[in-house]
Amino acid sequence: MKGRVAVLGAGSWGTVLAAVLADNGHDVTLWARREEQAQEIDQAHTNRKYLPDVKLPETLRATSSLSEALKGKEAVLFAVPSHSMREIAREARRWIEADALVIHAAKGFEIDSLKRMSEVLAEELGASYADRITVLSGPSHAEEVIRRCPTTVVVASQSAQAAEQAQMLFMNTYFRVYTNPDVIGVEVGGALKNIIALSAGLVDGLGFGDNAKAALLTRGLAEIARLGHAMGAEPITFVGLAGVGDLVVTCTSSHSRNWRAGHMISQGKKLDEVLATMGMVVEGVRTTKAAYVLKERYQVEMPIAEQLYSVLFADKDPEQAVKELMGRGRTQELEEIIGGW
Amino acid sequence: MKGRVAVLGAGSWGTVLAAVLADNGHDVTLWARREEQAQEIDQAHTNRKYLPDVKLPETLRATSSLSEALKGKEAVLFAVPSHSMREIAREARRWIEADALVIHAAKGFEIDSLKRMSEVLAEELGASYADRITVLSGPSHAEEVIRRCPTTVVVASQSAQAAEQAQMLFMNTYFRVYTNPDVIGVEVGGALKNIIALSAGLVDGLGFGDNAKAALLTRGLAEIARLGHAMGAEPITFVGLAGVGDLVVTCTSSHSRNWRAGHMISQGKKLDEVLATMGMVVEGVRTTKAAYVLKERYQVEMPIAEQLYSVLFADKDPEQAVKELMGRGRTQELEEIIGGW
Repeated sequence: MKGRVAVLGAGSWGTVLAAVLADNGHDVTLWARREEQAQEIDQAHTNRKYLPDVKLPETLRATSSLSEALKGKEAVLFAVPSHSMREIAREARRWIEADALVIHAAKGFEIDSLKRMSEVLAEELGASYADRITVLSGPSHAEEVIRRCPTTVVVASQSAQAAEQAQMLFMNTYFRVYTNPDVIGVEVGGALKNIIALSAGLVDGLGFGDNAKAALLTRGLAEIARLGHAMGAEPITFVGLAGVGDLVVTCTSSHSRNWRAGHMISQGKKLDEVLATMGMVVEGVRTTKAAYVLKERYQVEMPIAEQLYSVLFADKDPEQAVKELMGRGRTQELEEIIGGW
Repeated sequence: MKGRVAVLGAGSWGTVLAAVLADNGHDVTLWARREEQAQEIDQAHTNRKYLPDVKLPETLRATSSLSEALKGKEAVLFAVPSHSMREIAREARRWIEADALVIHAAKGFEIDSLKRMSEVLAEELGASYADRITVLSGPSHAEEVIRRCPTTVVVASQSAQAAEQAQMLFMNTYFRVYTNPDVIGVEVGGALKNIIALSAGLVDGLGFGDNAKAALLTRGLAEIARLGHAMGAEPITFVGLAGVGDLVVTCTSSHSRNWRAGHMISQGKKLDEVLATMGMVVEGVRTTKAAYVLKERYQVEMPIAEQLYSVLFADKDPEQAVKELMGRGRTQELEEIIGGW
């Protein structure tokens, strides 16, 4: 069954997801804030700024008008950065159909409030949408998806029907979609993995080896799961695509901005130099601050996030940070999650 | 508190674990079957066959006599391959002290019986040892541990006291040891990860990309957890060092024998050519057979293991296998593990 879908946000991920939907035969309109970008996509079928050398499907339309993008659409996908989600949802809400499925593909918490993206959407769109808001996440470099490399993602919603509807919209031979009822777990996994990616760059840069990096990923996942559990997530979600999967792809790719930032810090650069050199947002830096506040609020131990916070914001020596992580008291592996003996 | 420990098996992992124990000030005797190897370790403090260019601690003693190794020891570590565990346990049992702690560090099932290593040890050593048999596992390249690179492992036992005793023996500033009550989960994780490592070499060799590899690791972990759960493990153990951790270190290292075997098969080599070229055991091949039997016995779905089985033993085209994995029916992410909506 073919549907009418609006995709809001023409960055690389929004554009690629719109292309997947168009590939699946849906009638897709991509909204770009900038008029010229919308015209480029609509007429030249390219988005050179974000996807150089990529030809987009000819059936994919684009507009810079929210009303044009949204009216009459059965589903809307928010593929905008987490820091502009609230503003765009507020602008968009009056054009979204009352029975539309709402999906988002943003990774991160709202700055200051530290709300999850589905919470922000529910607040802005109203209670009638709340239980069918769906999040799409997982290990998915946009540049690979557009080349139709095999990719798997997860869609989570409180409503099984909403999740299955999203699954049916996106699923095809190269893009495999799983459903999961745990919205909180999927959102927390996607947001917090960047802390570990940043730390992975640091550990790699210090030459600690593969054992240390595997330890970092595993213990990092454990502390993400611990915080997620305190926030209401199912611990087992972190074994899934939005947990392990996304963590592996982010931590083992030297293309990741977060990994590169961590690597520079391991070489003695200060945080402001790193951010100046990179000239763009490093999500993991912001997320480390968020995790620091959340671990206090929910009273959970997050030793890796804590050490990274000291390295980034209090000039702590990274080698010393690793030493302290290794030197903690003896503990049970999954003490806060499983019951123990 | 310093103890007297016997380590059985002078391969690379046994030797390195013995060196860690000697580093910690314990009185350690390493048993090697071959007399010359025992003498080399005992007198020259080297084990050139398995650890070229490594100087072992001078306090580490070695012998080819089981009775000499075992008599008066408070703990015994079995660091022998899974296929010789039963035979060596049978030879060793009469020398093992009645109150000794028994630890093993082998990854794999017994061939044919498909019993776990702690089951084999319990059968051979007798019921009085059964509840304090402890398994040590996790992401730990021996070559890194001997260079004192930061490493984390897990020790699991039905008895909290036994696990803590093992933890205290091994733990130091570069070797961090966690405890876990789930023996089955830790053993199953260590044994089955090689199937995924082999598949990872295949997926990398076919050039499917990072998304596909992350999918393989994650979905591979899910099917390992599914089988483990059916066998009595806690699903959450697979988020830990013996699950995710070991999987990551094995699948992202091109030094892994299993990865290399999978890579060769992706380049069109037949299994017998690969095994002949490598000239040694590829655990993942044997484990794929074991998983095939276990999934039937416990009636769980293991689509990756099943496709790999067809590729290895029925000449199936690997690209076709990946296509079929991507083309399965729509499913929930963790359907057999969590309850769902």
